[in-house]
Amino acid sequence: MGRLVMKFGGTSVANIERIRNVARHVKREVDAGHEVAVVVSAMSGKTNELVAWCRDASPMHDAREYDAVVASGEQVTSGLLAIALQALGVQARSWQGWQIPIKTSDAHASARILDIDGGEIVKRFADRKEVAVIAGFQGINPQTGRITTLGRGGSDTSAVAIAAAIKADRCDIYTDVDGVYTTDPRIVPKARRLDKIAFEDMLELASLGAKVLQVRSVELGMVHNMPIFVRSSFDEPDAIDPHATPPGTLICSEEEMMESHVVTGIAFSKDEAQISVRQIEDKPGVAAAIFVPLASANINVDMIVQNVSEDGKTTDLTFTVPAADFDRAKETIAAARDKIGYARLDSAGDVAKVSVIGSGMRSHAGIAAKAFAALAERGINIRAITTSEIKFSVLIDTAYTELAVRTLHSLYGLDKA
Amino acid sequence: MGRLVMKFGGTSVANIERIRNVARHVKREVDAGHEVAVVVSAMSGKTNELVAWCRDASPMHDAREYDAVVASGEQVTSGLLAIALQALGVQARSWQGWQIPIKTSDAHASARILDIDGGEIVKRFADRKEVAVIAGFQGINPQTGRITTLGRGGSDTSAVAIAAAIKADRCDIYTDVDGVYTTDPRIVPKARRLDKIAFEDMLELASLGAKVLQVRSVELGMVHNMPIFVRSSFDEPDAIDPHATPPGTLICSEEEMMESHVVTGIAFSKDEAQISVRQIEDKPGVAAAIFVPLASANINVDMIVQNVSEDGKTTDLTFTVPAADFDRAKETIAAARDKIGYARLDSAGDVAKVSVIGSGMRSHAGIAAKAFAALAERGINIRAITTSEIKFSVLIDTAYTELAVRTLHSLYGLDKA
Repeated sequence: MGRLVMKFGGTSVANIERIRNVARHVKREVDAGHEVAVVVSAMSGKTNELVAWCRDASPMHDAREYDAVVASGEQVTSGLLAIALQALGVQARSWQGWQIPIKTSDAHASARILDIDGGEIVKRFADRKEVAVIAGFQGINPQTGRITTLGRGGSDTSAVAIAAAIKADRCDIYTDVDGVYTTDPRIVPKARRLDKIAFEDMLELASLGAKVLQVRSVELGMVHNMPIFVRSSFDEPDAIDPHATPPGTLICSEEEMMESHVVTGIAFSKDEAQISVRQIEDKPGVAAAIFVPLASANINVDMIVQNVSEDGKTTDLTFTVPAADFDRAKETIAAARDKIGYARLDSAGDVAKVSVIGSGMRSHAGIAAKAFAALAERGINIRAITTSEIKFSVLIDTAYTELAVRTLHSLYGLDKA
Repeated sequence: MGRLVMKFGGTSVANIERIRNVARHVKREVDAGHEVAVVVSAMSGKTNELVAWCRDASPMHDAREYDAVVASGEQVTSGLLAIALQALGVQARSWQGWQIPIKTSDAHASARILDIDGGEIVKRFADRKEVAVIAGFQGINPQTGRITTLGRGGSDTSAVAIAAAIKADRCDIYTDVDGVYTTDPRIVPKARRLDKIAFEDMLELASLGAKVLQVRSVELGMVHNMPIFVRSSFDEPDAIDPHATPPGTLICSEEEMMESHVVTGIAFSKDEAQISVRQIEDKPGVAAAIFVPLASANINVDMIVQNVSEDGKTTDLTFTVPAADFDRAKETIAAARDKIGYARLDSAGDVAKVSVIGSGMRSHAGIAAKAFAALAERGINIRAITTSEIKFSVLIDTAYTELAVRTLHSLYGLDKA
């Protein structure tokens, strides 16, 4: 017997028929003898509808009221799933964030979970064999007693945090894909599903655009060493043997990886724009003069590259922003020209970032060099490079994205047989 | 300066534009110097949608889960109205039933309010000039910490209970009609809006089919002597002078009535069916033998008429049920024939109940006699009669309903000039 958290996203609970399907997934695990807590998102489309109403009521809405409105979506799903489970003869009750309670920070609309009291839920596993159906994405501000939400995609984070709080053996994330792939299968038909991936690698993949899991949920899994299993919610619930390993990807600590690939996957992101600030003074405070105004304008800066100055006097600094913020970013920098003191702004709106990820890189030299050579061979110009311990990224012209991803996918032996 | 509760129903908050309109109504009262708590229903149609989902998930759903699902409708409206008020520069925050808390009984889906702690709301009137926007229809079961709902139309009850808890001067019910009429204006074009009506009379009018207010809210108003003002939510908010008396009907204690009409209004209900059980033994237990099986079958019995037995041995008993339950009621009685021991069942599916209401009747003899004579003059046969202190009802053939209502409306001088 084990203890499981099962998380179902919006498309998995989009209507009553699908909620019944989810109930059958849960019943299968209960029948197999597991203690189960389920975390649910709002029915797909509901959160967008509620957010749109808040915006319509006032573009500058109070985040505390936004949270009260938007958290209602998960409340509905949790009650409906509890009803559907009871209809299958499974003991179940719904839990809202404030009922557990899931205590969070006071950063309404993007709160962080501080503490979860899993005591009553665990007690009911033992006393009543009761499934806990928990509204994801939400909590309570313990100072004010008001509803908070964790920000978009927060239900993944709720699930992993609850799994840690109730000391679950595993957190199963049911989603509309059947696992984590070496890269996007729509771009590279030879992309392979990974059986296992280390938390660190998944963090890089998730934050670099593989939209399977919310980044914070992976961080939380890593901190608490909670294995996260990504699997499909569209498999026929009764056709799955609960005692066999189903198709999916287990995100776990490196030590539990049987085999360690040097490279785990290739991520890419097309909606990037590049700005290069030329001949800035090579002295403390210049970077701040550039990035503080951008932060104030709520522009998210991604890649930052600054080379060592050649003459010790001036240098160039390149960074990327989301394409949607390109014009605003250029205006912001231009407005701060006097303070920054640059000679020229170069920019390109049509760039893509391609990243190669693998915790195995740490122990292998020359991994990146191979990539530069292979891209050059294909005539793909590299605009900028950044590296970290377990990944490196190159900035290229968007038109070459697919070619670059496929080239690197083959280069590192990720293609399926 | 006064303290007001303003309650807005589903059609008044059906979309963001109408919610903005409600915000302007509230702002008008705040600008006039009043302390305001607003009680809102779910956007019209939302509650029906949520109820349908619960039924679809399982016809035998858990009422506690039903409550968690259905209460979300008012949660959404309360947050949206708080946002709309803030956009107008009015300090406001939303309150869910569990936040105040509004403590109720544990009768999920039809809970009764036990206690409301209005302290924090009143404190914020003084400290912050803050409008309290309260989700109607809901509360919390203090034993279990679970969400409860008050049953359909419960937001009226929430509003009056909150008005009593915060010691408001008045509870304004904004609705899609501009007050309480002497009878249905669609039937009697000469129907008049009442400026004032006593709680007792309103109770009879409400329970007899004038669908302006939930019966329980009127009972609560009577118990706490809380004046309830029924007014239109569709008037242009800014065209109303907050210092003048707007069109509407004040429901208040009899002592506050300037003039006391003998008859206040005429109510009627067409969807009735009549069953007469003939020649039953005139002994204790017979009525129970009839009505216990009907109650078990969840059939609501309305009018009950039993005359004094002529021979001391047998008597007849007549009762009415909703037309929708007519066939089931006949079957239920027939199935219990041995136990009841009756000679014959007579029934009529096409009957209407017309009621004349007025607390002034208490002190006036012969009010009913006038009606019987007037109806006879029109050739309307009276099938049965019941009376209470402040009303009497006659059962007639449905075809004569309009004629009877108009006749009685004129007879008692209710027609407008």
